[in-house]
Amino acid sequence: MGTALVDTCDRRPVAYCHDDGGRVSLAAPAPPSLLARFQDVRALTERLAAPLSPEDQTAQSMPEASPTKWHRAHTTWFFEEFLLGPAGGHQPFDPTFRYLFNSYYEAVGPRHPRPQRGLVTRPSADEVGRYRAHVDRAVVDLLRRGVDEKQEEMIVLGLNHEQQHQELLVMDALHLLSCHPFGPALLRRPAEDDPEPLPLTWRAVPGGLYEVGHDGTGFAFDNEGPRHSVHLVPFEIAERAVTNAEWLEFIADGGYDRPELWLSDGWAAVRRHGWRAPGYWLRQDGRWAAFGSAGVRPLRRDEPVCHLSFYEADAYARWAGARLPTEFEWEVAAREVADSRGRLLDPDRLHPGPAGRHMLGDVWEWTSSAYLPYPGFRPAQGAVGEYNGKFMSDQHVLRGASCATPAGHERPTYRNFYPAASRWVFAGLRLARP
Amino acid sequence: MGTALVDTCDRRPVAYCHDDGGRVSLAAPAPPSLLARFQDVRALTERLAAPLSPEDQTAQSMPEASPTKWHRAHTTWFFEEFLLGPAGGHQPFDPTFRYLFNSYYEAVGPRHPRPQRGLVTRPSADEVGRYRAHVDRAVVDLLRRGVDEKQEEMIVLGLNHEQQHQELLVMDALHLLSCHPFGPALLRRPAEDDPEPLPLTWRAVPGGLYEVGHDGTGFAFDNEGPRHSVHLVPFEIAERAVTNAEWLEFIADGGYDRPELWLSDGWAAVRRHGWRAPGYWLRQDGRWAAFGSAGVRPLRRDEPVCHLSFYEADAYARWAGARLPTEFEWEVAAREVADSRGRLLDPDRLHPGPAGRHMLGDVWEWTSSAYLPYPGFRPAQGAVGEYNGKFMSDQHVLRGASCATPAGHERPTYRNFYPAASRWVFAGLRLARP
Amino acid sequence: MGTALVDTCDRRPVAYCHDDGGRVSLAAPAPPSLLARFQDVRALTERLAAPLSPEDQTAQSMPEASPTKWHRAHTTWFFEEFLLGPAGGHQPFDPTFRYLFNSYYEAVGPRHPRPQRGLVTRPSADEVGRYRAHVDRAVVDLLRRGVDEKQEEMIVLGLNHEQQHQELLVMDALHLLSCHPFGPALLRRPAEDDPEPLPLTWRAVPGGLYEVGHDGTGFAFDNEGPRHSVHLVPFEIAERAVTNAEWLEFIADGGYDRPELWLSDGWAAVRRHGWRAPGYWLRQDGRWAAFGSAGVRPLRRDEPVCHLSFYEADAYARWAGARLPTEFEWEVAAREVADSRGRLLDPDRLHPGPAGRHMLGDVWEWTSSAYLPYPGFRPAQGAVGEYNGKFMSDQHVLRGASCATPAGHERPTYRNFYPAASRWVFAGLRLARP
Amino acid sequence: MGTALVDTCDRRPVAYCHDDGGRVSLAAPAPPSLLARFQDVRALTERLAAPLSPEDQTAQSMPEASPTKWHRAHTTWFFEEFLLGPAGGHQPFDPTFRYLFNSYYEAVGPRHPRPQRGLVTRPSADEVGRYRAHVDRAVVDLLRRGVDEKQEEMIVLGLNHEQQHQELLVMDALHLLSCHPFGPALLRRPAEDDPEPLPLTWRAVPGGLYEVGHDGTGFAFDNEGPRHSVHLVPFEIAERAVTNAEWLEFIADGGYDRPELWLSDGWAAVRRHGWRAPGYWLRQDGRWAAFGSAGVRPLRRDEPVCHLSFYEADAYARWAGARLPTEFEWEVAAREVADSRGRLLDPDRLHPGPAGRHMLGDVWEWTSSAYLPYPGFRPAQGAVGEYNGKFMSDQHVLRGASCATPAGHERPTYRNFYPAASRWVFAGLRLARP
Repeated sequence: MGTALVDTCDRRPVAYCHDDGGRVSLAAPAPPSLLARFQDVRALTERLAAPLSPEDQTAQSMPEASPTKWHRAHTTWFFEEFLLGPAGGHQPFDPTFRYLFNSYYEAVGPRHPRPQRGLVTRPSADEVGRYRAHVDRAVVDLLRRGVDEKQEEMIVLGLNHEQQHQELLVMDALHLLSCHPFGPALLRRPAEDDPEPLPLTWRAVPGGLYEVGHDGTGFAFDNEGPRHSVHLVPFEIAERAVTNAEWLEFIADGGYDRPELWLSDGWAAVRRHGWRAPGYWLRQDGRWAAFGSAGVRPLRRDEPVCHLSFYEADAYARWAGARLPTEFEWEVAAREVADSRGRLLDPDRLHPGPAGRHMLGDVWEWTSSAYLPYPGFRPAQGAVGEYNGKFMSDQHVLRGASCATPAGHERPTYRNFYPAASRWVFAGLRLARP
Repeated sequence: MGTALVDTCDRRPVAYCHDDGGRVSLAAPAPPSLLARFQDVRALTERLAAPLSPEDQTAQSMPEASPTKWHRAHTTWFFEEFLLGPAGGHQPFDPTFRYLFNSYYEAVGPRHPRPQRGLVTRPSADEVGRYRAHVDRAVVDLLRRGVDEKQEEMIVLGLNHEQQHQELLVMDALHLLSCHPFGPALLRRPAEDDPEPLPLTWRAVPGGLYEVGHDGTGFAFDNEGPRHSVHLVPFEIAERAVTNAEWLEFIADGGYDRPELWLSDGWAAVRRHGWRAPGYWLRQDGRWAAFGSAGVRPLRRDEPVCHLSFYEADAYARWAGARLPTEFEWEVAAREVADSRGRLLDPDRLHPGPAGRHMLGDVWEWTSSAYLPYPGFRPAQGAVGEYNGKFMSDQHVLRGASCATPAGHERPTYRNFYPAASRWVFAGLRLARP
Repeated sequence: MGTALVDTCDRRPVAYCHDDGGRVSLAAPAPPSLLARFQDVRALTERLAAPLSPEDQTAQSMPEASPTKWHRAHTTWFFEEFLLGPAGGHQPFDPTFRYLFNSYYEAVGPRHPRPQRGLVTRPSADEVGRYRAHVDRAVVDLLRRGVDEKQEEMIVLGLNHEQQHQELLVMDALHLLSCHPFGPALLRRPAEDDPEPLPLTWRAVPGGLYEVGHDGTGFAFDNEGPRHSVHLVPFEIAERAVTNAEWLEFIADGGYDRPELWLSDGWAAVRRHGWRAPGYWLRQDGRWAAFGSAGVRPLRRDEPVCHLSFYEADAYARWAGARLPTEFEWEVAAREVADSRGRLLDPDRLHPGPAGRHMLGDVWEWTSSAYLPYPGFRPAQGAVGEYNGKFMSDQHVLRGASCATPAGHERPTYRNFYPAASRWVFAGLRLARP
Repeated sequence: MGTALVDTCDRRPVAYCHDDGGRVSLAAPAPPSLLARFQDVRALTERLAAPLSPEDQTAQSMPEASPTKWHRAHTTWFFEEFLLGPAGGHQPFDPTFRYLFNSYYEAVGPRHPRPQRGLVTRPSADEVGRYRAHVDRAVVDLLRRGVDEKQEEMIVLGLNHEQQHQELLVMDALHLLSCHPFGPALLRRPAEDDPEPLPLTWRAVPGGLYEVGHDGTGFAFDNEGPRHSVHLVPFEIAERAVTNAEWLEFIADGGYDRPELWLSDGWAAVRRHGWRAPGYWLRQDGRWAAFGSAGVRPLRRDEPVCHLSFYEADAYARWAGARLPTEFEWEVAAREVADSRGRLLDPDRLHPGPAGRHMLGDVWEWTSSAYLPYPGFRPAQGAVGEYNGKFMSDQHVLRGASCATPAGHERPTYRNFYPAASRWVFAGLRLARP
């Protein structure tokens, strides 16, 4: 069993880090209690790290992933670098951390190479805990003394940045454990029934001109704007995500053996990596099971299929006689679903809920759109926003949110993006058709 | 000198062959003399190969490139496979050629691995000439006997396919010679003045809904349709391409040393390949010169800069305070330029003309658009069109045409595409701005 | 500084694990107290691991190296697998450890891939400590109950195996810390004078037939026999190892820039890795310093140069107008030096002492001999000795011992071996000449 | 069939060129007619190249191999560089050839990178023929005018150098053709019976001190000396090489599936390359056949097995309960076989003869010896001998000669050497035992 599981590890190197800070678009209105929100977000990170030992927190299982310890320190460094430092009077916890825990902000100075994060055994996980407490105290002091609008924006940004890393922390930790030959569990999950999925129904959306992108109310990353018009032709979109049950049919119909279903690069990836099923799936006693937060477990037929590459999502859609929606079709459709929230991040239950009408939660959904700037997009000024557009080539947009996305971080205009071959994301798909 | 030139060779492996056949969209109206056109196109290929020795025609300088001999045989195989075979009564010249000269049509059967085309030393270049003559005779016979509409479409498609390969043949042969330490010339080019480029002027295009894509009149590849509406915001587009003179300013201003100008993947490519200038440029006696069809020569300041990757085009636009146009902005602008044709393929003069109002000729122009299907796009049926959409991931659209594009093959709706790091294409850029 | 240090990391992948168990040659006479020796050796391993945190003990800095935690567990597994299991009545601490901590004994069953040892975050370092205690208790019980001759041999073998891993543990931990950007110290080392080295003197050895190899008295690995005759021509051998002071002259004389001094593969390695100095050396304020157990410190001119590849040792000898000794020249010479012991493993002082007449201690010495079987060599039977000769290709013999070799493990017939490019070994050289 | 054949291609990159010139050891006595010998050797090269088209002569099938055209030019350059240039008054045929056709002599100046020899399409094969004629005329003129002793030595050396390249030319051309999907034949070979091999008999050699190495009579490369004493223990050596028939038994007995038979690096190579049989063997209609100079043909059971790596030879010996001889055992045994010559190079018959008592001819024989300098070895002075010892690491000695070795080039003291994984050499093995 162990051996098979190891084979599901993605080890493809990539050339960048996309844990991008982004920036506040317009002035973010001060929430009732920024202090309370600060404390909640910071506490959730520690809550997520708690089941992981110092050893777990140190290892890096692939270049795209980072150690838990690094996520905990990097999100802390962000406040030190962009809030406390400029505010003055702050004593850095350790001057070497500026080098160790910067991710990619070139304007800030040199940084430690990403693929070697697993070799930074010092500071220890405990020391990182003390670092977090040190910075928390300083931010809380600052908040209690009062912050100006720019500082408030920076805190809001820092919290959104940390929420992004909370999802990455979960993804990366799960990937690390998936590489362990005995697939250890992060949490317990009781035995469950395996009900049939809901039948697949379709929603028709009329063609015409639509406004898309963020409207400036509340926080958004800059890549969600400017709001602009797009012309859509009429289309239908599925009212639930593709399920594990459906994916088993795709496999049974030779989905991974038929080049005509695949993009050329996708077929090359299938052969190079030997893909026979989604990420973390493995054969166990003649059946497909899947590794997840609760270790290796039987598949639930009604759950959305997860840990797909873009290529797999695209091939499935072709097999099903449909296609992926564009990111704008997705966004327009999502507006009209009142009860669109599915399962979001709950440290005690890190898996998708049953596929239903959810568009924000359960799994991210690959779209057919390339990650490109909206018309009129301009990168922000300064180090925080220095690189906001620099990942806009050869990446693919995912929309929605997943069971690893912190509640409050999801919104219909959110643009997530990954390279086409990524499989450690909580990503599935939803079909569209003319 | 030789050593420096060798360094300009791109040796990046890619996973596909994109010399796609495509298919006829609807019924192509029969041109006055298809026979004459057949003979002209076929003769031009031989004309292009004539200055290349049997040795030149055999070598393959990188996985993306193919030997001249292979291009000559593959375009011939296309007629044998898709026209003469189905027509019946044809005696294949050599049954092994079906394996050797298929490019990527999986439905046709197994094929020889692309990166090993340079090892297929047999048949000889002379034998390939006999193969071409054998097939030419059969097609001419068929044309004289009369062809049905489907056969006529297939011949038109085969000729467009061969025209694509004519440009590839020129690109690939030039790349091969660029790898020779002494940069041999394909042809002679007289000494020339080095006039200043035209001043840069801008054309304003109003916003609104536009129809884009091929309208079905005459031949087009299927990726040019369906015709559909797009909404554009007002923009300006430069009335000539960026010149060598301007590129020298970019270099002088540290363009290749400033990460803030580059996409993340682009900056990684700059460092990995050590790019300091466009492809085929080299330092000679303290000045930049460029290798081309006439060997290594001084740069002409008024020519469009050529042999750029997408990353370089994008970085330049950012440096210039502008951006690349989308493919639809480009297409809409191109409609209004009456005298848009620049230098197209002339075997005696394989270099761009001076940058002017040309949009179809001189150099291909990188756009900011990813190569994706148009709304409602459906791949064609059968082996010829089998894979028409399979390259639609992680490629970038170029518009226009180049001095290596055969006259008559260019049109404003044509969608060329390459991976972002490609530099052996005759590709430059044109600026756009809000 | 950090960046420069990182550059000294070797990251060359290798295809094997050479922590070979070997086997007892003939019956090993029972030492006065095997129990005391068992307890001493086992305690020393824990003593070496003590300054390393759980995080330090988990990371793997290159495929050739293993985590501290793994060394601690693997040496324990050896007793469980080859002593306690066959003895019967033993309850394995954890059945999964058989998979996790087997190194290369194929007869024992499948094992975890070596390059992924750094991802085995579970069991924790603490749990490994409990594993060691569990097995120690069982072995001590067995010893107290009384062991037969074969069991005694196996315990002696297990202790020699563990001593080998003690040196590897030190080498690997040092390599890991050298990859940390701030070069943390394992221990303190007081400031020292920097005296001049002893002058270089030579010992003449007459030619003729000599017996070499182990004579069967006491423990030896099987590769040290059979004892046999070799014919030597007269030679001289240096009476001390090459020093840091001499190596600085080699560098100053362009040693790393002159291809004529190097083996062809060596020169390729110099260019591929950018070697400019021995492993762990770095430039600091315009001078060469070296990373070691006490962090980055000034070089001591009188210490033997250390962390050399075979290629560097060979090039130096050529530069010095001399050559490396063969392993048999070395062995014959070592017999005659009565006071040949230098600094052996002391957990508080992990660095060589000043170069003197020492041949066993301070640093291993590269010889010119390939690692090949002695005439009549036969691999042992069974899993323990299963693979004793399987590393006998493309490796180079080192003789002597180093400051990381446990006292009592060294002897003049000991054959250590590594691939030519290895630099994380405590290895230097001694010159020979006709 | 074609596909299977392609799989037999070795594509392992290596870091060097070992077509070493070597040097004359002391004064070579002038042969009766050096002129006649010069003309014979030069003519044989052209004879070997004659069946190869210009296309065949240009391609390079792997980094270790060189194009035929290159061999023809390089051996010619050798005379121009080391004989005609120093002699004065010589007009170089083309000054760029000094860069293009130098192999590794660093003292002579920069040279074209070995892995790109296949891209040097110019000069053409015909032009290389003219180059050869130009240099031949000059050498013949010089010989007719009279040469001094040093010039005579240089000519003798140049001819030995060219003979080495004759064998390389055959090896490399065969490798290239083996990569062609249809395995074209270089020559015809009539249908043959398939007799049983001779029974395997053994010759006993007593132990004691033996003199080995070249005695200075006639030409030898410097690595064959100095002559010196070695002490051997009694051994037996097989009186013929291992045959195809025996190799089929090894395969049938799971030889390629049993790790215990292999060196660690060898087993890794088996798995990495997927070796299931010797080089150039392929399955055809359920039987093993082999590609060779006459294309793909049935195996002859009585021929010596050929195109083995060192690892395979070593594994076979272990399987057979024997071992490989050392190079000195081989040399001592070879002295006593009066009729030791087998099939040497005949352009019309490029395959081994039936295995018999031959030790010089048919196939090279892997020994267990690493390629190391003899005691007292000193590299020669000047560019010709500049690098004579630089390949003495991680290579393995082969003794004897093969059906691709020119007659007159073989001798019992000849030391051929290759890396352990090489399979395009005409190499087999002979067993030894205590």
